[in-house]
Amino acid sequence: MRQSFDEHADSSFGQRHLPRIRQAMAEQGLDGFLVPHEDEYQNEYLPAANDRLAWATGFTGSAGAAVILKDRAAVFVDGRYTLQVRDQVDQSLFELQDLVDGGVPAWLESRLGQGQKIGFDPRLHSPEALERLKAAAARAGAELLPVEDNPVDRAWGAERPAQPKAPVVPHPLEYAGEASASKRARVGRSLAEAGADAAVITAPASIAWLFNIRGGDVIRSPLPLSQAVLNADGTARLFLDPDKVTPELPAWLGNQVTLEPPEALAGALQALGGRRVLVDPGQSSAWYFGVLQGAGAQVVRGQDPCALPRACKNPTELEGARSAHRRDGAALTRFLHWVATEAQASLPDEREIVARLEHFREQTGVLKDLSFDTIAGAGANGAIVHYRPTTHRIRQVQPGELLLVDSGAQYLDGTTDVTRTLAIGEPSAEMRHRYTLVLKGHLALGRARFPQGTSGQMLDALARAPLWAAGLDYDHGTGHGVGSYLGVHEGPQRIAKAGQPVPLRPGMIVSNEPGYYKTGAYGIRIENLQFVTEAEEVEGGERPMLGFETLTLAPYDRRLINEILLSDEEREQVNAYHARVLAEIGPQLEPEVLAWLEAACEPL
Amino acid sequence: MRQSFDEHADSSFGQRHLPRIRQAMAEQGLDGFLVPHEDEYQNEYLPAANDRLAWATGFTGSAGAAVILKDRAAVFVDGRYTLQVRDQVDQSLFELQDLVDGGVPAWLESRLGQGQKIGFDPRLHSPEALERLKAAAARAGAELLPVEDNPVDRAWGAERPAQPKAPVVPHPLEYAGEASASKRARVGRSLAEAGADAAVITAPASIAWLFNIRGGDVIRSPLPLSQAVLNADGTARLFLDPDKVTPELPAWLGNQVTLEPPEALAGALQALGGRRVLVDPGQSSAWYFGVLQGAGAQVVRGQDPCALPRACKNPTELEGARSAHRRDGAALTRFLHWVATEAQASLPDEREIVARLEHFREQTGVLKDLSFDTIAGAGANGAIVHYRPTTHRIRQVQPGELLLVDSGAQYLDGTTDVTRTLAIGEPSAEMRHRYTLVLKGHLALGRARFPQGTSGQMLDALARAPLWAAGLDYDHGTGHGVGSYLGVHEGPQRIAKAGQPVPLRPGMIVSNEPGYYKTGAYGIRIENLQFVTEAEEVEGGERPMLGFETLTLAPYDRRLINEILLSDEEREQVNAYHARVLAEIGPQLEPEVLAWLEAACEPL
Repeated sequence: MRQSFDEHADSSFGQRHLPRIRQAMAEQGLDGFLVPHEDEYQNEYLPAANDRLAWATGFTGSAGAAVILKDRAAVFVDGRYTLQVRDQVDQSLFELQDLVDGGVPAWLESRLGQGQKIGFDPRLHSPEALERLKAAAARAGAELLPVEDNPVDRAWGAERPAQPKAPVVPHPLEYAGEASASKRARVGRSLAEAGADAAVITAPASIAWLFNIRGGDVIRSPLPLSQAVLNADGTARLFLDPDKVTPELPAWLGNQVTLEPPEALAGALQALGGRRVLVDPGQSSAWYFGVLQGAGAQVVRGQDPCALPRACKNPTELEGARSAHRRDGAALTRFLHWVATEAQASLPDEREIVARLEHFREQTGVLKDLSFDTIAGAGANGAIVHYRPTTHRIRQVQPGELLLVDSGAQYLDGTTDVTRTLAIGEPSAEMRHRYTLVLKGHLALGRARFPQGTSGQMLDALARAPLWAAGLDYDHGTGHGVGSYLGVHEGPQRIAKAGQPVPLRPGMIVSNEPGYYKTGAYGIRIENLQFVTEAEEVEGGERPMLGFETLTLAPYDRRLINEILLSDEEREQVNAYHARVLAEIGPQLEPEVLAWLEAACEPL
Repeated sequence: MRQSFDEHADSSFGQRHLPRIRQAMAEQGLDGFLVPHEDEYQNEYLPAANDRLAWATGFTGSAGAAVILKDRAAVFVDGRYTLQVRDQVDQSLFELQDLVDGGVPAWLESRLGQGQKIGFDPRLHSPEALERLKAAAARAGAELLPVEDNPVDRAWGAERPAQPKAPVVPHPLEYAGEASASKRARVGRSLAEAGADAAVITAPASIAWLFNIRGGDVIRSPLPLSQAVLNADGTARLFLDPDKVTPELPAWLGNQVTLEPPEALAGALQALGGRRVLVDPGQSSAWYFGVLQGAGAQVVRGQDPCALPRACKNPTELEGARSAHRRDGAALTRFLHWVATEAQASLPDEREIVARLEHFREQTGVLKDLSFDTIAGAGANGAIVHYRPTTHRIRQVQPGELLLVDSGAQYLDGTTDVTRTLAIGEPSAEMRHRYTLVLKGHLALGRARFPQGTSGQMLDALARAPLWAAGLDYDHGTGHGVGSYLGVHEGPQRIAKAGQPVPLRPGMIVSNEPGYYKTGAYGIRIENLQFVTEAEEVEGGERPMLGFETLTLAPYDRRLINEILLSDEEREQVNAYHARVLAEIGPQLEPEVLAWLEAACEPL
């Protein structure tokens, strides 16, 4: 089974590891050291070898930081992790602090003393974050010093897992849809327009997209950890551990791309002295800025030039996404059938639920990986937005409860991400009311039509308005971008209250996932992936509009829909969607499941 | 009659005035001069004496700029004014250019030559705009030079109207609701929190609000043109032409406010040397920054500290707004009755329509001014979003046309702004369809409930979604803030696709005015004012929500509503609103108008 239910860190980690880190700090003459969650790749998921925060403190959340001083230390987490951090971190060793309100800078300003020297690893911090940290330390009279030899790594020593060396393979044109040479030429031209001669590309997803390659260094996503320099003429240098280079790779990359070992990177950056080099401060750490500026390059700060072209899927990628979702929808439908029948009596626990869904996906025969660890939240666990079942928290579902299942798969032709909320036994009137409100928002966003230039931020309220009207809301975004056999969370677009608005463009895949969470009781989320299309013209329409085509194919749980709350338009939208699910998924199913799906998709 | 139908400038202005401006430029050794629309107060409306752009070019729009060189000149306008500018500006003298796309900086960069000296009046440019202009000129090898003696003013000479000297009077506490001393103490504390010792206040609306005074220097708004310095301890210096000081004013201002002539301003700024002074670069021109920096003050750039407290109306102001809208609603209802009866046969022209509405408002006996020139757009004129009837464009309404009337009034207790679109004769099915879509958006925004922190930008799509679904949209914002017996357009909040998001807070008044415009045929806009309230709790609601209370009281034209397109919720919303209009306006009306209103407000 792919998914594990273990935690790879626990609250004993601090006791065991903190003295060793302090010893390494002392050897380097440091009074303190900064330990961000981020690694060298500023990526969402970390290989085990780079999860320094977990090793130092025990905390395994997806965002956070620690500061270790000689005589005190603190762990910083955001609102999502305030409960989890108390389980995972030994509070006799670490103060727990809010990552957002004041955060690390405020703590440094109030805790550091005159003349103290605090180390940081410049490969792990974005230049903007570092500016704020340096200013805060300076106000306390202390100084932040870059260190070459990270004391956490030194303390970790031989116990540290090896860096991942997953083979890097070609991603064939039948899935990618555009040759790397064409992508490099296109992005190269955009560099010239941005006033740059070259760009440093460090986001693993951008490297995978640009060179049409895939790797496996990071769990749940086929990312090749590496770096590249792209020139405006479309030529490039790709820095990749030789152990990861598969035999077919050099020919696949062609003669416009030189393949070099990671050790050559610093020299390649230094060779950019005197040239204008685009670097994304949101993707590339302060180390890149330091090396380039030291070499006399003119650094142009701007968005990763692959981010927008990568987000706008080409027709081949969209056809692949449709195909992946038809396949994944059949697997999910078998799972939904199992939940609606056998599981109603056997009342499985979350581990069995996760295993059963993974089994159906594995049966496709082409599953490359999950796209993230399945969230199966039974009852009160469903109300924990970032829940992942781990051994000590696993619950068995009970009659009268809701089961929230958020899951996804990686296939060569596409990445899926889907959430369904399911009734076990008889749902309460309140559950049906809340579910229907969430569904109304989900439907409103699904059928939205909007002019060019509209950002996801401008559409977010459409998904929330039915909940707002009832005095309810949810504390997460409504939608995120999704890669094509790449990361399941991908920018730059999103549908949310906050964030830099990016206009939605044809081909962008976004999730549509409003929710409702009742702490200690149940959680509801309904999620489909959909992509931006040019909307069909309507009679009398005067302006071209954009709209969405839904990718995800799986029925909503009709036992949770209170039909009285739906407008005619909403009812027809559900019926049309269910008819499409039946038409596209039905032919893949065995008779018993098909019969169930037919009933599940009957018109409301 | 208050409203005039004349233009105060025409296309002969360039021929008559350009040579005189060039003469004045030559006397000062300038190769060119920048003429922005903005005056010394960076205010929306200008006194005639400060409408330099109109005097120089003939163009009277509310935004724009000109550049005058020795041998060529250009006028820059945005998309709203591309037609108007061709009527008003002599194209043998001025190139017409787009204000937004490239704008003045791009033109300077391509047209200026090495070593040229271009003058500008530092009192008329925001520091940000000036930076861009200076950079563009520098790229062409030219230089921008500040001039003390504006060559347009010099050329204008004795023909220039006098600066307005309207008396400045106390705005009594029964309308203001909070004493100036309390406001000054409150804003003063916010200065301390923003790290400033003092603030320069130049927005006339902020001065009026802060000191509880009103003037009349600018048509359609009771603004006192003046400047002030507010100290963190709540004391202030107010710089006001002695001719405008009414006898009761010094006592009203009290002993914490010193009243000084405008000539003392520069010295007062210089006296701030060494202190931290908050200045709003969106409100105060580059001149203030120059004088303060020259004096060694530490300039803190930030929003006008009165902007947010001014926008959040206190209970007295809200009660005043309700009262003003009940009064104004009765006047408007008499007008609507006239349009629905007499005017259907007499087919008045736009001038008569404007006059009739003004007459009903004048009859209240307490009208201080219109809040802007009434837009009465008959037929195709209704499709011109920023239409104002002027002599040569006035149309008579015709059967089968729509009449769009956007108007407002200034009363001591409040400022109104309302748009109704009315059928003359029998409207077409298309008109009713479009009107109903606009109404659906207007209703959705009116009934919106939303959590704290929500900006108008996040709600804008609610008003557009019904039009978007039909392939339609409108090219203006959905809502603007409104002052309390102050400007009818007031920030910082707005409801629009663009702009800096500002969370909506209780007490903020905003307009709700979606529209639809069919060029050459008709325009539709429906506008109410509404203010942000804490929404009533609903059963099962878990979070406090904000919502809106509608201020404007006047029926929608039911002949334009296609009921089939309304949901039950929308129909009930219209009926509840109409019942409220009848209850609050009815008792003020004479029997004939009341009978009409009763019919107009019958449930759909």
